[in-house]
This record gives sequence, C-alpha cells and structure tokens, in this order.
Amino acid sequence: MSALRFPDLPPSEPQGADLLAQERSKTTFSVHDLSNYLYGEEYLERQEKFLGLIENEPAFDKSNRYFLGRTERFAGALKKDYALVKLAQQQKWTPEEFQQADILIDEPGPFGLHRGMFMPTLVSQGTDEQHELFLKPALRYEVIGCYAQTEIGHVSNVQGIETTATYIPETNEFELHTPYLTACKWWIGGLGKAANHAVVMARLISNGKDYGPHALCVPIRSMEDHTLLPGVMAGDIGPKFGYNTTDNGCMWFDHYRVPHISLLAKYSSIKPGSGEYIKPPNSKLSYGTMVLIRASLVGYARIGLAKAATIATRYSAIRRQFVDKDQPKKMGKEVIETPVLDYSMQQYRLFPIIAAAYACHFTSKEMMRLYYLNIKNMASGNFSLLADVHASSSGLKSLTTTMAAASIEECRRACGGHGFSSFSGLPLMLQDYAPNVTWEGDNYMITQQTGRYLFKSFRDLVAKRASGKFSASQITNPTLAYLNTYLDNPDLKCPATTPAQFHNPEIQLAAYGHRAAHMVAEIVHGLDVEKRSWNSMLVEIYNASVAHCQLILVQNFILGIRGDMPQPEGIVATPLSPAAKEALTDLSDLFALHQIHKQPGEFLTSGYIDAKQVSMMGKAIMDVMEKKIRPNAVGFVDAFAFPDYYLNSALGRFDGKVYEAYTEMATREPINQTEVIEGYEQYIKPFTNPKGLKGKSIQARL
Amino acid sequence: MSALRFPDLPPSEPQGADLLAQERSKTTFSVHDLSNYLYGEEYLERQEKFLGLIENEPAFDKSNRYFLGRTERFAGALKKDYALVKLAQQQKWTPEEFQQADILIDEPGPFGLHRGMFMPTLVSQGTDEQHELFLKPALRYEVIGCYAQTEIGHVSNVQGIETTATYIPETNEFELHTPYLTACKWWIGGLGKAANHAVVMARLISNGKDYGPHALCVPIRSMEDHTLLPGVMAGDIGPKFGYNTTDNGCMWFDHYRVPHISLLAKYSSIKPGSGEYIKPPNSKLSYGTMVLIRASLVGYARIGLAKAATIATRYSAIRRQFVDKDQPKKMGKEVIETPVLDYSMQQYRLFPIIAAAYACHFTSKEMMRLYYLNIKNMASGNFSLLADVHASSSGLKSLTTTMAAASIEECRRACGGHGFSSFSGLPLMLQDYAPNVTWEGDNYMITQQTGRYLFKSFRDLVAKRASGKFSASQITNPTLAYLNTYLDNPDLKCPATTPAQFHNPEIQLAAYGHRAAHMVAEIVHGLDVEKRSWNSMLVEIYNASVAHCQLILVQNFILGIRGDMPQPEGIVATPLSPAAKEALTDLSDLFALHQIHKQPGEFLTSGYIDAKQVSMMGKAIMDVMEKKIRPNAVGFVDAFAFPDYYLNSALGRFDGKVYEAYTEMATREPINQTEVIEGYEQYIKPFTNPKGLKGKSIQARL
Repeated sequence: MSALRFPDLPPSEPQGADLLAQERSKTTFSVHDLSNYLYGEEYLERQEKFLGLIENEPAFDKSNRYFLGRTERFAGALKKDYALVKLAQQQKWTPEEFQQADILIDEPGPFGLHRGMFMPTLVSQGTDEQHELFLKPALRYEVIGCYAQTEIGHVSNVQGIETTATYIPETNEFELHTPYLTACKWWIGGLGKAANHAVVMARLISNGKDYGPHALCVPIRSMEDHTLLPGVMAGDIGPKFGYNTTDNGCMWFDHYRVPHISLLAKYSSIKPGSGEYIKPPNSKLSYGTMVLIRASLVGYARIGLAKAATIATRYSAIRRQFVDKDQPKKMGKEVIETPVLDYSMQQYRLFPIIAAAYACHFTSKEMMRLYYLNIKNMASGNFSLLADVHASSSGLKSLTTTMAAASIEECRRACGGHGFSSFSGLPLMLQDYAPNVTWEGDNYMITQQTGRYLFKSFRDLVAKRASGKFSASQITNPTLAYLNTYLDNPDLKCPATTPAQFHNPEIQLAAYGHRAAHMVAEIVHGLDVEKRSWNSMLVEIYNASVAHCQLILVQNFILGIRGDMPQPEGIVATPLSPAAKEALTDLSDLFALHQIHKQPGEFLTSGYIDAKQVSMMGKAIMDVMEKKIRPNAVGFVDAFAFPDYYLNSALGRFDGKVYEAYTEMATREPINQTEVIEGYEQYIKPFTNPKGLKGKSIQARL
Repeated sequence: MSALRFPDLPPSEPQGADLLAQERSKTTFSVHDLSNYLYGEEYLERQEKFLGLIENEPAFDKSNRYFLGRTERFAGALKKDYALVKLAQQQKWTPEEFQQADILIDEPGPFGLHRGMFMPTLVSQGTDEQHELFLKPALRYEVIGCYAQTEIGHVSNVQGIETTATYIPETNEFELHTPYLTACKWWIGGLGKAANHAVVMARLISNGKDYGPHALCVPIRSMEDHTLLPGVMAGDIGPKFGYNTTDNGCMWFDHYRVPHISLLAKYSSIKPGSGEYIKPPNSKLSYGTMVLIRASLVGYARIGLAKAATIATRYSAIRRQFVDKDQPKKMGKEVIETPVLDYSMQQYRLFPIIAAAYACHFTSKEMMRLYYLNIKNMASGNFSLLADVHASSSGLKSLTTTMAAASIEECRRACGGHGFSSFSGLPLMLQDYAPNVTWEGDNYMITQQTGRYLFKSFRDLVAKRASGKFSASQITNPTLAYLNTYLDNPDLKCPATTPAQFHNPEIQLAAYGHRAAHMVAEIVHGLDVEKRSWNSMLVEIYNASVAHCQLILVQNFILGIRGDMPQPEGIVATPLSPAAKEALTDLSDLFALHQIHKQPGEFLTSGYIDAKQVSMMGKAIMDVMEKKIRPNAVGFVDAFAFPDYYLNSALGRFDGKVYEAYTEMATREPINQTEVIEGYEQYIKPFTNPKGLKGKSIQARL
C-alpha cells in the first residue's frame, strides 16, 4: 500500500497571506529600522549569509525533526554537530559567529557543553601548561570534553558532592573514586556518548584532609577507539522532557588514577610529593564567570519569549473565531469572523509577552555591559560593582527564565488546539527550554543570593543614615538609590488620578521601587527584629528578589528606548526612529503596568498604590493594547527577524500559509506512509471482521 | 560490543527507605482510613484485584514506555487497547470497572474516543433503529468509531464548521463534502488509523437551507480490509506535545454519499423525500452531557494533582540539600543534610498542591451528585438546577484543569533536575495532561458562560431586592446566597485580628464570597452603567469566574470534611476518623488561605481584607505548614493509594529506593546497549583520531 495523499484544497477566504499583509500595512514604524536597532545591521546581514550556508545542507535539515524518536534524533544531532564544526573550521568563524549559526540551527547537541562549559573552565582555571595539554587539542575537537559536576544525589549543591580525588604522594597521582551510588555523576551533557575527556568536580583530599570540591581534567574514553578507560564507567542517563539530542550522561570511578597535572591549578593546587594544599588567592574571582552565564541566560530568555510570541501573534492574526457583535471585523465589504488577536483576552495574554521580550533584550544588553565593566574593574582590583551585578544576575536569571518558560507555554495555549501539535514548533521549544529554570542555579534557590545582597545593602544604608554622616551623593548604584528614596518617605502615595498618568515612567519606576524597598524593609524587620529564621522567610525572600528584578527590567526598558542606556566602550548606538520609539514606549508602558495590574498584591500592601488606581491601570492597559499595540503587534514580532527556517513552525510562518504548511507536514507522519496501519490484522480485524468476510456484503450490513 | 553495566553501589546514608519510614511513623492519622473515606473499600479492593490482572501482562507493561518513539508507542497502544478490550470482555467488566483498569494503565489509546465520545453520542442522539444499527456492533468493537467535530480552521467554534451534509431527495441520501482546506476535520481521536466509523458534525443543508451543525454516523473505512472508502480521505495528524499513543486524525470528504439513516435523529431530522427539517424540542437537553464531561474533568484534575504531588512529596522527603543551620536535621545522632521538604519554600510549593487535590476530590464528588440530580429533575421538566450547574461546571473545568496543569509542572520542577528526567514520570504526565486545558471548551473561552450566569443572577437579584418583595428565603442556591450577603453590606470588613482567626471557615468563606461578589458587581457596573463592551471586559470576566469557582472549591472542601456534604441517593458516607478529620482541616485551611496570600489583589481591592491581614495570613500559613502539615505530608499522599505500577516513577516509589530504580532504568536506554555510539567512526573519530593511531602512544599524549 502506498502513502496517503491529502487533497490539494485552498483554505476558505480570507487567506492568511492577505490577513498578514493587512496587518503589516497598519504598522506605524519601519520594521527594518527596529530590527537594526535591536541587532545592528552587521548581525542581520550575517544571518542572511549563514542561512544561505545552512538551510539547504542535509545535516541541518529540520524537516524530520518532529517525527524522530530519541535514538534517531541523537544520531542526527551528532551528525549535525560534526557538520557544524567542519563548517565553522572551513568558514573560520569566531566564537560569536559560531553561536549565531548555532542559534539558527536551534538543536542542543553532544558537543554543546564542550564549548559551553568544558573549554571555558579550562580557560579560567587551567595553567598555561594545562592550556597547552588540554585546551589546544580541545579547540581542534581532538579532545572533546564535558563538565562533570552534579551527582545523582547532589544536583544543585556543589558542596555536597561525594566523588573523591585523593592525592597519592607515592606516585604523584590523584585517585578518583565514587564511594556511593549517590556520588555517581549525573546530567553531564556530552558525557553519555560523545566526550573523551571530562572536567570532574571532586572533593580534593590530601594527607587525610578534605579541601572540598575542586576541578580535574581527565581522559575518560580511549583516544584510539572511544571505549571507556579502565576504572571509568559512563553512559547516557536516558530520555528527558527535552534536550533529547544531547547525551546527558552518568559516570562512576573505581579507584581511577590520573596524573598530578589533571588538577586544574590556576588558583589552587597540591604541591607534588608533600601534598601540601595551596589556597586560591581570592574566591570572588570565580563569581565573574557565573555572572556571565546568568547574564547570557537573560539573553536566551529574550529569544524564547520573542520566538514564542512571533508564532502565537502571527497565528492569532490569522485564526478567526466568532463574530464580535459589538465590533464586527470586515475584509473589504464582507464581515468575517473576528481574528482572535482582536479579543482583549488574547491581547492580555500575548502583548505582555511581546513586551517582555523587548524588556529582556535591553536588560540582557545592560547585563553584558556590566559584566565586561566589572571584569575590567576587578582586573585593576576594584570590586565595587561585583556584589550588585552578581545579585542582579542571579535574580534576573531566575525571573526571566521563569517568565520565558511560562510564556512559551502561554503562547502554546494561545494557539488553541494547534499549539498542541508539534508542527506549531511550540512543544519542542517548551521542552528544550525547560531546563533553563533549573540549571545554573535553581530558580528558587538562587534568589537567596539576591536577597542577601538586598538585606545587607538595606542594613548598611539604614546604619549610614543613622550615623548622621550620610548624604545622597554617596549612593553608588540604583539599588541603593531606590532603597534610599523609600527610607526618605516610606508612606509615599502614588499621585496618579487618571489612567493616562500611569504612562509617566517616573510613576512606574516609583511604584516598582517603593514596592521592592517595602518588601526588603519588611524582611529585614522579620529577620532582625522579630528574629524569624531564614528558612521561615524563603517565600518572602523569593518575592523580594522578583520585585527587585522587575524594577531592573522596567528601568532598562525605559532607558533602552530613551537611548539613555550606557553603551559598551567603543560601541556607537544605532539611533531609534521617532515612530519606532513611540511604538516601543507603548510596549514599555504595558510591560510596567500589566504586572502591577495582574498581581497588584504587593503594590497595594506597600501602600504606594490603592485599589482605585489598580482599576484605573486596568483601563490604561486595555486602552494602550487596543489602540496602540494591536495595530503594531505583527510589526513588533516581525522586527525580531526570525527566519522561517529558525521558527520551523506551520503556524508562525512569515507568509501566513499556515494550513497549507500544517497539512503538508502531516503527510510526512511515518504512520501515514501506509493506508492501513500495521497492527490491523492482529489488533483490529479480530473485532471488526473476525470471520474474514469479503466483498460488498459486509459493508452493506451498515 | 556489549551493553553497559553500571556498578552496583548503595546510596550513602540515610537510605530513602529509612527516611520514608521515619515520615510514616510521624503521621497522625490512619492512612488506610483516609483512603477508605476517599474511595470506599470496594474501589480499593478492586484496584488490588485489577493490579494482579494487569501488572504482569506484557500488553500492559510500562517498562519501555519512556524509551519508545511515536511509531512504536502507537503500535504498543493499539496492542494494549486490544488486550484491554479482550480482558474486559472476559472479565465482564462494567463501564466503571473498565474505567478503573484504564486509569491504572494510564495511556490514552486509539479506542479511547470510541468509548468516550462515539458511543455516548450514539446513545444520546441516536434513535432506536440507529442504536440497533450502530451502537450494538460498537459495543462489540465491530464498529469502531470516532467523533469528528473540530476542523483545522475551526477548533473551538462548532458554529463555524464548514463541512456540509446536503440532503439529496432523489436518492434519499446525504452528501458529505469538504469545500475548503479549513473544513478538513482535524484532531479527531481514533480517526487517524483505528476507526471504521465516524460521527461527523456537518452543516445540514436541505432544499438550499443551512440548518447549522448536525451529527451523522457514517462508515469511513472498509469493514473488509480497513482501507478508506471511496470519497473519504483520512490519516493521522502527526506528532503532538503529548497523547502520542492516540491517532488524532484528519478527514476530507469528496461528495461522499451516505444513506438517510446516517443522520442521528433523536432530536432533529429530515423528512425523507420532501427534505423538510424537523426541529429539536428543547435545546437545553444537550447541556446535560456537557456538564457530565466537564464535571468528570474535575475528577481527572484531582488525579493529576494527586499523582504529581505523590511523586514530588515522597521524593522531597528523601532528597537532601544543605544543612539548615538554624534547625539541623538529625537521623539518630548524626546531623544529615536537610530533606528539601523541610524548607518553607518547598512546602509553599507542594503542600497547596496536596490540598488542591483534596479540594478537587470533594468538588468532583459534589458535581457528579448535582449532575445526576439535575438529570433526574430535567426528566420531570424541572430545569431549576441546570443554569447554576452548567455555569459552575464550565468555570470549574477551566479552573481545576488550569490548576492541575500548572501543578504537575510545579511538581516536576520541585523535584529539581531529576523532574526533567522521563523516569520521574512527570514529563509524560504533563504532556498527556496538557490537552485538558484546551479540549471540552478552551479554559479562557468557557469562563464567559460562567460569567453570563453570574451577571444575570446578580442583575435579577438586584431587581428583586429593589422590588420590595424580596426575602432571603427565596434564595435557591449558594451563588445567590453569597451575592445577597454582599448586597446586604458591600463594605463589610474582615473581623480577624490574629493569625489564628483565619482558621475559622466562616471567615474564609466570607472572604471568598465577598471578593467574588465584588468582582461580579464591578463587571455588571462596567457593562450596564459604563456601557463597556463585552470584549473589553473579558479579562475581568475570566477573573470573576475563577473567583466564583475558588469559592466553590473552598466550600466543598469544608463541607466534605464536616461530613455535611449531601450524598448521592442510596449512598451512605463512610465516616471520617477524628484524627483524619483534624488533619484534613489543616489542609482545607491551607487551601483557603494560600490562594489569598499568594494573590491577594482582588481580596484587597474588594475591601474585605486589608494589608495587615494578608501579612497575618502569611504567618498562619507558615505555621500550619510547618507544624501541622509537614508531619503528615507523606501520609496525605500515601492516602491517594496510587500503586507503583500506576506512578511508573523512579522518584515517587513507595519504598523510597529512588536512586537504585533511577539508575536501573538508565541501563535500559537504547543508546546504552553498545559501549561506543554508532556514529563514532563517522562523526567523532575524524576529529579525535583522524590518522587512526593505535595503541598506548595516542593516550599517552594526554
């Protein structure tokens, strides 16, 4: 029997292409200008060039991505990673260029952690000799590495790891050992099948003393034939919610000896022979990398938000449901069913996500600027920025990845039933995005780091103010500024008396600042005066971190549009056209006000906002969504400049031909390759035609 | 090369089994008693019996479930559905017994909609002759059917469907036709490969007049060999986020003729020859089935909540992280890392989910009782219950399925990294549960039905009160009761002045009632006085439905524990032991207070609760969680009585041997069946050993 062929019918009128064209004709700004402002022209030109190299190359083909089982997908990812490295070598890509191509292909693979964690760890913690030995062959992919930190019984808590690395003075070696099942390395990306080396975090033991977790770089598979080396057992940890194209692996050591050079020794080391431990000079230095990773996750959150919003917004302009009797929609003279994007609920669900994508864009840019500034400062011994940047990056990692994961799911549901189809692109996106809320610091856990910094800043500020020697000019960062404003007047009330006044950014910032400071003050009171335990206040601490970071997002959005945001050294900002500036200001208003309106509790209990103002804010939001953002919605997502190859979505296509693409994809479903399913004879026929009747008679009975 | 063998090491102390034993020793009530109260002894005994029949039968084996690709999973589901029907026939199961076994196996299959929608539609809309023709063979699975309503361009909007069924008087037939791509039937469970018949919703056209959507029962595949009948094209719609063991299908008709008997004619029909349309007597009758389905989804939400909570709670008692310095945890004399269940944030995440599972249990029971009462009433012409039950069931379907989907994901994340592993059981649970938020009425859309009823009730009540002829004794249902209390005093304030007073159920109910009524009053003011459009108020309408339904959940929880809940006729309630009653009261308090504390906005703007009280409530919650619920947490989830076979989770095992089970499952990963991955020669070796070096030399370079 042959494969099914679905009929070649057109959709009923109006066509998706015409609806999107109508949307695009209403956009009040140049999409091209806004894209340039976001990415810069060079980036966009390179995207075009890379698409040309990638899109039609079989190793990077996405057309079967949604159909394959895990085994086939992993095999494909290995092939893809190989081809990508070959292409990068041939094209002489910089790491930034590599990353841009990698984003377009959009599939985590077995070599990802080699680049993302293994090599960066060698760079930051290895000596020159170790760079020669490990990093150079790693750059050529001769050494392929993974970063083996987490253990099955100790996923988020590095201090709790049980794997040991015991120094053996007699042979000047370390002996790696897995004493318990709970010490088995687990979740290690690239370890399952691909890596031949691992950076292993193990408790360093010398002369009977335990110095806690340290990193060693060790071979795990034979360079000759890729078999496991004696003393090492490793494999894949099995299927996961997402990320199934990566071989997250597990590893046990059985008294596995490695040479002294394995211990990454830039900061701390063991003296050969004596086994004496040499302490790291400054533990703060390692915070820098953590800030970089967390800041870059804010950028990835931006991509997740923007990608999901692109698909859901374009499809919501095409998908029609019911006729809105108060405001019937017309196409020419005909009344058509109302596009779901015209319904206020759909706007309330989607537009804040578009706004959040832009908010994260500006904050991610600012975090990267601060990261590089801090690195430069630290190199000259100035650690003044570190605490604030570290605290913000932790809280922002938590907040923005939580927002992005929730928003991808919201966009999936906002596509109605079709968001459940893999062909929408949203299920796999959600699944592959999901680990972001857990890795690099669990999103609940790491907000304690933000909290600690906020409480310390508050206590210091209160003490300084009480000392009588304080002047506002001493304030060195935005955190202290909003805490100080609050302390000046904890009973401040919002002066707005009309919905329109909430468009004033000063009022928005005051509301967020007052709320965050009030929460910090309450927690410090709970800890210091009521003597409540830290554990009993974890919920409040989490909420305070969210409040602090929402303020940062609002702030950077406002500055980002104004053009007031400081630029990285040597970078001249592309100017934003007045029309785009006006449109982005609407989004910024929505971003600031929607969060207050949706969850007004803390703004109300902080005393700054009252119930009447929340209700006014609701009207301000509905108004800006319907009149200002609605006409620009498709323009805003078009400006993200995601090519169809990247989106890989029937619903999110630029040309609006959603149903044509959707049904075409279904014809490629493997079980559609025969008309009658394979199990028919065994599992259906015994019920439906047990006697094996033939001919017309049997059909005629019905 | 042979399959990998992982080392056989024990976890470090303390063992999961010991930790769970310690938890269970602290439970203040008999788990067995509470299970009996929830399910009745008969149900639990039957569960044991069914487990014996199912657990070791290869067709129902779950050990490969997480490894297979879609094609293999569908093949397995077809085999499973066949075996289950055979077993049911052999055991002579009632539909209820079938359902109980089906829940244990927990895998949607190709025959699911045959039972769930096809046969029920025949029952409710078919004539006796049609029952003879279609239903009887359907009960034997000779006819295997599906329910073909949604179309690719019209998923939630039945009125928008485009498939036509035109009456042809000359031959006394109907001609089914798919005029456009948008009219293609889509998402139809069981249609892709399994069904040989379909109930098709199509616009009924006779004598040129369009009578809107009607149901026809038609053959689609040959009874002889299962090939598609001429004029019908059908296939599978491809991979989805979940439900991949069901063949959701698509279907086109090309001027497909079916006999007159195909039109399901219990309520409306076409006169043969003349083509005259005979109208249905009462359109309200069809609401009954919708109420049943939505009420049953509340029950399934309960299962989802309870199952996810069981896994996450048990594992959180075993998983340990850090030492809480304020309150170090001891096991014997040893200080151990603190089980994550001791952290207040983990409690705040998980305990409300346990509470929600119990809340949904009592409300689902009450909704089923009301459904049967309403059916009985309607049969005698009494429609007084219908509007309230229909409105509540719509809003509750929306609220509880939204809660359950969010809670499964929250439980997944609360297991830390391991919740991302398929072996936790949570990813597949989440994926298969996800359609509940969309099907049987999109969760945003259907709250408009709840809203309409609430606003009408409010307007009627206001008019009655204004008429001067009103007395409170006229109030016939709980909705009117809380609206009336509000109208008596819209400025009522909560009298609580201490955290303890929030444990008073009257205060809890007053808070929820006042908030819901206030929201209804505001919306009616917006619509009737401010003349805002319905569309502009959809967000408020959704929120009002949520508020109304949260009140119902709180109410039924309180009544369910008191034993004050009305019982279905002929059912004598199992009594609840005093110890279990006390423990459940703690959960009920948490359920009521947590929602206020977490999202206090509407309670504050309603004026009933003030900021100080929200803060007191926070203390009341933390207190009840730490002192009352924490010791009973494992007991509460044990009482759900889910066997390990059902949970299919390494983390949620009753015996606590999580890491042993987890690593054992990983050994069965297909790519672990060889030590060196298949793609090595092609995609890894060219980098790592391009010259094909052999022997020790190559390793020695490192």
